[in-house]
Amino acid sequence: MLLNRSERNFPRVIIIGAGFGGVEVARQLKNKEVEVLLIDRNNYHTFQPLMYQVATGTLASDSISFPLRKMFKNQNNFRFRLAEVLKIDSENRMVRTSVGDYDYDYLVIATGATSNFFGNKQVERHALPMKSVVEALNIRSYLLQNLEEAVLRKNASDRESYLNFVVVGGGPTGVELSGAIAEYQQHMLKKDYPELSTYEMKVFLVEGTDKILGALSEKSSRDAENYLKELGVKTILGTVVTDYDGNTVTLSSGEKIATKTVIWGAGVMGQMPEGINPELIQRGNRIKITPQCQVEGEENIYAIGDVSAMITEENPRGLPGVAPVAQQQGSYVAKHILNRMNNSSSEDFKYFDKGSMATIGRSRAVVDIGNFHMKGFLAWTTWMFVHLVSIFGFRNRVVTFVNWSIKFLTKNSGIRLIIHRYERPASEPSTADEQSSAQDN
Amino acid sequence: MLLNRSERNFPRVIIIGAGFGGVEVARQLKNKEVEVLLIDRNNYHTFQPLMYQVATGTLASDSISFPLRKMFKNQNNFRFRLAEVLKIDSENRMVRTSVGDYDYDYLVIATGATSNFFGNKQVERHALPMKSVVEALNIRSYLLQNLEEAVLRKNASDRESYLNFVVVGGGPTGVELSGAIAEYQQHMLKKDYPELSTYEMKVFLVEGTDKILGALSEKSSRDAENYLKELGVKTILGTVVTDYDGNTVTLSSGEKIATKTVIWGAGVMGQMPEGINPELIQRGNRIKITPQCQVEGEENIYAIGDVSAMITEENPRGLPGVAPVAQQQGSYVAKHILNRMNNSSSEDFKYFDKGSMATIGRSRAVVDIGNFHMKGFLAWTTWMFVHLVSIFGFRNRVVTFVNWSIKFLTKNSGIRLIIHRYERPASEPSTADEQSSAQDN
Repeated sequence: MLLNRSERNFPRVIIIGAGFGGVEVARQLKNKEVEVLLIDRNNYHTFQPLMYQVATGTLASDSISFPLRKMFKNQNNFRFRLAEVLKIDSENRMVRTSVGDYDYDYLVIATGATSNFFGNKQVERHALPMKSVVEALNIRSYLLQNLEEAVLRKNASDRESYLNFVVVGGGPTGVELSGAIAEYQQHMLKKDYPELSTYEMKVFLVEGTDKILGALSEKSSRDAENYLKELGVKTILGTVVTDYDGNTVTLSSGEKIATKTVIWGAGVMGQMPEGINPELIQRGNRIKITPQCQVEGEENIYAIGDVSAMITEENPRGLPGVAPVAQQQGSYVAKHILNRMNNSSSEDFKYFDKGSMATIGRSRAVVDIGNFHMKGFLAWTTWMFVHLVSIFGFRNRVVTFVNWSIKFLTKNSGIRLIIHRYERPASEPSTADEQSSAQDN
Repeated sequence: MLLNRSERNFPRVIIIGAGFGGVEVARQLKNKEVEVLLIDRNNYHTFQPLMYQVATGTLASDSISFPLRKMFKNQNNFRFRLAEVLKIDSENRMVRTSVGDYDYDYLVIATGATSNFFGNKQVERHALPMKSVVEALNIRSYLLQNLEEAVLRKNASDRESYLNFVVVGGGPTGVELSGAIAEYQQHMLKKDYPELSTYEMKVFLVEGTDKILGALSEKSSRDAENYLKELGVKTILGTVVTDYDGNTVTLSSGEKIATKTVIWGAGVMGQMPEGINPELIQRGNRIKITPQCQVEGEENIYAIGDVSAMITEENPRGLPGVAPVAQQQGSYVAKHILNRMNNSSSEDFKYFDKGSMATIGRSRAVVDIGNFHMKGFLAWTTWMFVHLVSIFGFRNRVVTFVNWSIKFLTKNSGIRLIIHRYERPASEPSTADEQSSAQDN
């Protein structure tokens, strides 16, 4: 068997994590004189930028997920293991996993990021993260479950917390998600739930700084804010969530909002495997890497993408946590490994910023490319085109295109299915009251 | 609110179950002077005939599931409740549910069928049923998980039970499912899992009678058996499963097959709500109904589809448990209710048999229409056409068509995702041995 060390001739590259970075390393090593072993806890790659469309029922989970074995079916030097990494044992050049130990010559850590609740356990317990397909599906189920609950309650005051939806974090995720929820409210709520009124549902977007889409231009930020306003989203700036008990969210302004649903898009942190020297772990739980993407002091270990921090004078806080950084670093690392095998040196990594964009519902989007700014219908079609060509797999592209086209034409398309019911952890008090207020017959 | 009894003027028809029968009743009552309340434990209708394609990764779950509220969005007299029915209280004309009690003037029981393990608790514990979307997704995950497990084991004897797949029941479900698994084996296994050999994987179909597709013609039955043989499925006739402990299945012939996967398609029984007079419950847990689809002795309660048994001289065992029976009965019951409201009488229900069909992989299918028989490519395209036009929803039709086309063109398409991992109940002994035999590095 290939993974049997005694039989192989080529150096082995182990990649942990099949996100944009990890997959790119593996692809760039096709037909090279290395063995590639990709390890991930899921058997698929996720196209994260469209996760919010799964959460809001525009796309099915399979449209943004691509089976890894199928992705690499024509790459002979590729192997995959579905496993949890338990520990990196750099002394013995070993990765210890839930299905066995694997030795490496080169290791690429590309484990990505997870939600950061900044230590607020109470919020972590009750808010909904959206960093995986399962979490996105949980949000889809839970939004619908709350509407079903609202229908059962006769008094508007009893319905309120089921119909207030709070999204935390004004980055692209929060903006796109709150826009999509508001679009559902505008176009579909009344048709799906004749018992409810459109104005009863409310969508809030809470952002800690004084503007949304902080990484984009001033102009894009303002345009996006206007778009959200048009859709009825209540944007609350310069405010953070201080507490959430599952029923009421408390903001730093003192304001309280009764809500069963807080979706967390306010922060991320690196998903750190065990075995990394703690001195190398930077702000945001990221591994400090050299300008050549190596973990400091470990020349055979690379770290790329959201789990890494390449801190330079130009970027004292590291590069942004976006797909293109991970992809470009992945491609760079593959070449770096091949160069080393040929005893040649590599230039330092350079990030090429192709621009940023965000969409806020039908015909509304903002695009920044350098100093160039676009908005409205043209930006929206650009956004769709860029995302369509970026999704992996012909089938996924066609199915996504079909879904988007039908949604555009009908204004009422959607995969509003509760396949796996989402059960939130019990909030300590007040459940008895709620139960008794559900009276409809 | 509409469901408040004091405010409504029209009689209320409650339908329990949103399968083919229940949905048809609701649709036929559109624009009529009745209130329709549909109750289901899921918020979607499932197109059951294609469930096996979800289990085997050809279609995503959303392609065969249609949100009920969206389905009836233009029907003003329609209301929906996502609930479990706890009890039918015919004395008080009430349906008691997990979200409250609802009173009816007419009640239609359309709860369908669930798997029947004929009292074998051991088999029920370890075998995989396929009567819901969640169960189909569990099968998809579990098939893939077993292949991942097989890859970890160095000795063929350790891999065996992970690579033997046993399908029980030679009806359309079992035939189509075993055919689809064998097709994966033939076209895709080797590409996905270069560590495994095609010949190592085995698919068995176990049927209790002496032929598969017993409801179809002799000719179709023989043709289907040949098709399965071509695909490498080992069909075992005249044999039933007597025991299964999660590792080894025992057949009535005494034969034992080492397998982690037994999929149960061998029998169904009605899903009986509480409160039905036990004297009316027939063989297969079905409610005895009159030739006018009424529950005997309860003229305001109808039962249709798989949960009902209309026993006549022509059909001493009741009508077959197929979608057209449920649909035709649903349509009949809607008219029956309207006739009664107009004080007119109805003719007895008559089932119109449009024919039967089954598909066994690419270009292989059998079709019976009366005495007319078709097979091969033509039958296969007929099968696809009939199913495509029967799926509810334009989006689902287009997406299904796209998936089928790509599968036909590439021979390697598929949604081989483990989104929700399936954990089987622990089988008592021998897990320790298995764990230790997973050694690969």
